[in-house]
Amino acid sequence: MSSCRLLFTCLCLLSSTALALADPLPSWRDGPSRTAITTFVESVTDENSPDFVPEAQRIATFDNDGTLWSEQPLYFQAIFAIDRVKALASSHPEWKTEEPFASILKGDLQGALSGGESAVISMIMATHANMTTDEFADITTQWMETARHPATGRRYSEMVFQPMLELLGYLRSNGFKTFIVSGGGIEFMRPWTEAVYGIPPEQVVGSSIRTQYVLRGEGPVFERQPELFFFDDKEGKPVAINHHIGRRPILAVGNSDGDFQMLEYTTTGEGARLGVIIHHTDAQREWAYDRESHIGRLGRGLDEADERGWIVVDMKDEWATIYPTK
Amino acid sequence: MSSCRLLFTCLCLLSSTALALADPLPSWRDGPSRTAITTFVESVTDENSPDFVPEAQRIATFDNDGTLWSEQPLYFQAIFAIDRVKALASSHPEWKTEEPFASILKGDLQGALSGGESAVISMIMATHANMTTDEFADITTQWMETARHPATGRRYSEMVFQPMLELLGYLRSNGFKTFIVSGGGIEFMRPWTEAVYGIPPEQVVGSSIRTQYVLRGEGPVFERQPELFFFDDKEGKPVAINHHIGRRPILAVGNSDGDFQMLEYTTTGEGARLGVIIHHTDAQREWAYDRESHIGRLGRGLDEADERGWIVVDMKDEWATIYPTK
Repeated sequence: MSSCRLLFTCLCLLSSTALALADPLPSWRDGPSRTAITTFVESVTDENSPDFVPEAQRIATFDNDGTLWSEQPLYFQAIFAIDRVKALASSHPEWKTEEPFASILKGDLQGALSGGESAVISMIMATHANMTTDEFADITTQWMETARHPATGRRYSEMVFQPMLELLGYLRSNGFKTFIVSGGGIEFMRPWTEAVYGIPPEQVVGSSIRTQYVLRGEGPVFERQPELFFFDDKEGKPVAINHHIGRRPILAVGNSDGDFQMLEYTTTGEGARLGVIIHHTDAQREWAYDRESHIGRLGRGLDEADERGWIVVDMKDEWATIYPTK
Repeated sequence: MSSCRLLFTCLCLLSSTALALADPLPSWRDGPSRTAITTFVESVTDENSPDFVPEAQRIATFDNDGTLWSEQPLYFQAIFAIDRVKALASSHPEWKTEEPFASILKGDLQGALSGGESAVISMIMATHANMTTDEFADITTQWMETARHPATGRRYSEMVFQPMLELLGYLRSNGFKTFIVSGGGIEFMRPWTEAVYGIPPEQVVGSSIRTQYVLRGEGPVFERQPELFFFDDKEGKPVAINHHIGRRPILAVGNSDGDFQMLEYTTTGEGARLGVIIHHTDAQREWAYDRESHIGRLGRGLDEADERGWIVVDMKDEWATIYPTK
């Protein structure tokens, strides 16, 4: 080896060492959450630690709405559904007098939602079913590329949380496999989670409607039926984790009581475990809400976090940045 | 670098080159199937090939019964269910007169199966449900460790196909992600697929019964309900692939008409695709059956393989070994 090449090799080694030493969580301020997370990751990845966990078992699950991206003033998928009702209205003259569509078209969201769960289901089925999965993926992709959030003017994919992007990357670089486990629609998320979060489709778990395999002239398609297949919330989250992943996570992150059972299941296993709750405390940079919110209500999680050893992330105090730089 | 260390480095490089050149498919004789498989893998992994497929999209799905392991004289999971009926009989005196249990206990399998689908469902629910997932995993694991196949005297985990183990390894070393997509029970397979096939639980897709998340004194458990959740066969296979993986495979391997739709879905996508049928032709070393078999019936697949470009593996001619050396 020539001395020139040797020097080059040494420089490369030095530079990769420098990279390894760079802070993987620059948007997490020094504080209890950051310390708890890095202490946990260091202990489960250290072969000499009693808490060591083999790589294959380093499963981390993340809620999506309110955990990886914002969820106010409405779940983004609900905003998508409303946008779809408006786009489809001209082909549905009957919607002018039919609820919840009539109220949506008049811009009266309160009125639309007064029909409760059945109104939401009507809206979802009218906008999410009776098309193929490919058609739905195209519609979702186009909406994600063009729609803008009413308050921030950002694309929805730009309303993901920068500290969570860093946490996902940090975990993966420490041998974790990262999964989304969301109450949101599995096929609403899959077209963009890989580009936005680095989470591939096979690691996205969510709610779903029934699909049917149908052979058409152009080849086989999946037709989306107007019938719920699985609702991935509350007790549904651990059930879906068991069904889909088949291993108990060692780390779970959520933000609402809909994530309670996922955190409970994760943190009651043997060995080192970490439960994390993202607490929306930043009315200025994002939103501040918990017990009384119409979305992402968080009460029991706050009450029991301490005794269960879950960490509660104070967004206002602990996050230096909320959204990625555009 | 001292000349001694340089020599050592060179030797290491040479030895890893030698490893890379070793035949990854020693149990596959030279023949059309071996050639089709290696040609396909070389083309989709060659960045300069028009058929190149990025690593993340190299999804390969495998049926289990009759594809990765044997399935005669009965699906091994059915043998497991029969063994369980016998083991549980003393706590179920009513089974002495109740079908299909009475026939099973008399050793009259024909009689037991004469009740058709409802007999099979009774048998599955009586042996697979009303316990926790952990209890079921323990029972499955113990059975896999101790039970022996009636004809070969081998453990069932020793009745996997050596050429398929090599194929799984060859694909993974070429950046493929390998999945099981089986009509068999997802929780019957998961306790042992990682050790036996190198396929982790999160890459096992199968049929399932409903589970419920229940908080007990010792912590949360999943109770297995006597109710079918999903039947992963025929049209169910592509539906489950779409639900579970969310990507279209580029390679699928099956052995019966229950795999037809999985191969159809896989091979009608754009770009390079490979469909593979394992044809049981070896009455001496394994079993020979296809169109008229009571299990793993294969007719349409044989009829249409040629026009669809699927390869049909002749086990007798093309496989130098069937089972791993014990």
